[in-house]
Amino acid sequence: MKAAVFKGVKSMACEERPKPVITQPSDAIIRVVRACVCGSDLWFYRDGGRPVNTQTGHEAIGVVESIGDDVTVAKPGDFVIVPFPFSCGTCPVCKAGFESCCPHGGYFGSDDGMGCQAEYLRVPEANGTLVTVPGDASTFDDAMLASLLTLSDVMSTGYHAAASAEVKPGDTAVVFGDGAVGLCGVLSAKLCGAERIIAMSRHADRQAIAREFGATDIVEERGDDAVARVLDMTDGYGADAVLECVGSAQSNDTAMKVARAGAIVGRVGLPHGVEVDVPGLFYRNVGLRGGPAPVRTYDLQGLLGKVLDGDIHPGRVFTAEFTLDDIQAAYEAMDERRTVKSLLRVSEV
Amino acid sequence: MKAAVFKGVKSMACEERPKPVITQPSDAIIRVVRACVCGSDLWFYRDGGRPVNTQTGHEAIGVVESIGDDVTVAKPGDFVIVPFPFSCGTCPVCKAGFESCCPHGGYFGSDDGMGCQAEYLRVPEANGTLVTVPGDASTFDDAMLASLLTLSDVMSTGYHAAASAEVKPGDTAVVFGDGAVGLCGVLSAKLCGAERIIAMSRHADRQAIAREFGATDIVEERGDDAVARVLDMTDGYGADAVLECVGSAQSNDTAMKVARAGAIVGRVGLPHGVEVDVPGLFYRNVGLRGGPAPVRTYDLQGLLGKVLDGDIHPGRVFTAEFTLDDIQAAYEAMDERRTVKSLLRVSEV
Repeated sequence: MKAAVFKGVKSMACEERPKPVITQPSDAIIRVVRACVCGSDLWFYRDGGRPVNTQTGHEAIGVVESIGDDVTVAKPGDFVIVPFPFSCGTCPVCKAGFESCCPHGGYFGSDDGMGCQAEYLRVPEANGTLVTVPGDASTFDDAMLASLLTLSDVMSTGYHAAASAEVKPGDTAVVFGDGAVGLCGVLSAKLCGAERIIAMSRHADRQAIAREFGATDIVEERGDDAVARVLDMTDGYGADAVLECVGSAQSNDTAMKVARAGAIVGRVGLPHGVEVDVPGLFYRNVGLRGGPAPVRTYDLQGLLGKVLDGDIHPGRVFTAEFTLDDIQAAYEAMDERRTVKSLLRVSEV
Repeated sequence: MKAAVFKGVKSMACEERPKPVITQPSDAIIRVVRACVCGSDLWFYRDGGRPVNTQTGHEAIGVVESIGDDVTVAKPGDFVIVPFPFSCGTCPVCKAGFESCCPHGGYFGSDDGMGCQAEYLRVPEANGTLVTVPGDASTFDDAMLASLLTLSDVMSTGYHAAASAEVKPGDTAVVFGDGAVGLCGVLSAKLCGAERIIAMSRHADRQAIAREFGATDIVEERGDDAVARVLDMTDGYGADAVLECVGSAQSNDTAMKVARAGAIVGRVGLPHGVEVDVPGLFYRNVGLRGGPAPVRTYDLQGLLGKVLDGDIHPGRVFTAEFTLDDIQAAYEAMDERRTVKSLLRVSEV
């Protein structure tokens, strides 16, 4: 089968790899219909830090090809979302709704048929991992497939930022990050009832999607200037909820400073060099929550229904489309910010 | 009037100070009935760090003596709880229920008649600060007065740890700290429905109160040994909710390590030298919340009713009683751990 492979810094290739097979009774094999490139893939694309010649990608939707003897969540032919984490589904961590931290699970994006940027995919712990999509998948148009694909990571991750920040009806929310996750954070803050949504963005194309998703204000400043702007916009008190969807030291620092006393910073950006002012947060009762998103929990709790019902269209974050053969171009377009997010058209339903 | 005054490290005195008077239309003057010494008072008692000859104490209950023209929350003769923070009650921070961080407020325990360890007390921003106690105060016995007094700080602070940690029915909760706040944290975890409550304590007298308040297990270990014990007690997954009521670096570190993935550490111990493993918390989705407790919010939301109804008896944390004249002995008894908390009998209802 065709699979995307990391060849070194700024170098991806589409290569032939063995089609994955069932190795455990809990496995399922998925024929990938759509996959995509994640902002977090750019970390290794730009800086390395992972072995060369390994398979990549952790977001996919597709059709179940075959299942192990223990798999009951789906049968061959079913259309499924593959969340970026795999998880047992039965331990206390999974039962608490944090399956993205299941100690018996892990993440996609590796060898042994577990890269999602490929024609086929092996899903371990399928019962605790897969999200089965009801309905006749042959009727899903490209826009619906794109929105379903975001439920494997970015929409659910943006929602985790909003849920962690406990966005409530009437709130003023600030969203850091105008990548796909940040934009989905804006959409999620809107879903949670935020009345005012301040999107931190410097790019006109992303600002436009942010507004479409519910942003009421755009702030282009960063650092201390951004703090001053947001405090000015909130009568000096700060925002009721803060969504941190970048992960950089500056973004986290600014996020904590614009939080109203008692607010929570919901963070989903992978932290790089972040430092926390422990007493500063304490004396202002500012909370810090978040991490890898429990995608499956949120999808099943309501996001999947909202996509299928046409209430939300998170697939709008895909602004360019590629094939597996063009994997280098798909990464380059994101790296150079020519697209918000690159979709990979792998096969048809 | 008599007032407790800080004279230097390990030295307190009862001195004559001017009886406070109304200085603003929003002020109220309270005749103090009961006050007490707080664990946090021991920080300056042991290490200094505050000006000598200043008035002390931030916990009191008493009778309203006089009010400024704008005060409507209580009238002379009313029995009131004085929360350790004072707050405007009308700004977005107060309205969000975090009046302990009101930018227009502050804390008791200073000059200008604002030390609670005194015969009289000036309460600024009375409308946003005082908690009026319904009923005939002349019928309150000593035990009821002691429990009402905990609603000025320690019970409400212990509750803030539980609320910040989002203790839910059926949870396993771990409580760090066996001082008055930690013990009230145990009681609060029980109120929130925790099924198993692990109290970290090395002192038999405190362990006994912890069990009376609902602790099901006692762990005497600290540091890595404590982590191993709690993980062993939770099948390796960690606790569903963690209450940090100490504030030391070790206690916070241990608290974060015993949290189940997805759990929240609710912290109310004033942080001293605490460091946070930012990526470690992130990848385990462990949250960090808490700070100075919004006492008034919790009292009015239900704690006051539970005390008046006799559902809870947090006053049990007072294991020794003194007068203002004995203020040095009151501090010494707590410093030397001969009492959990020192009550000050100042006047009668």
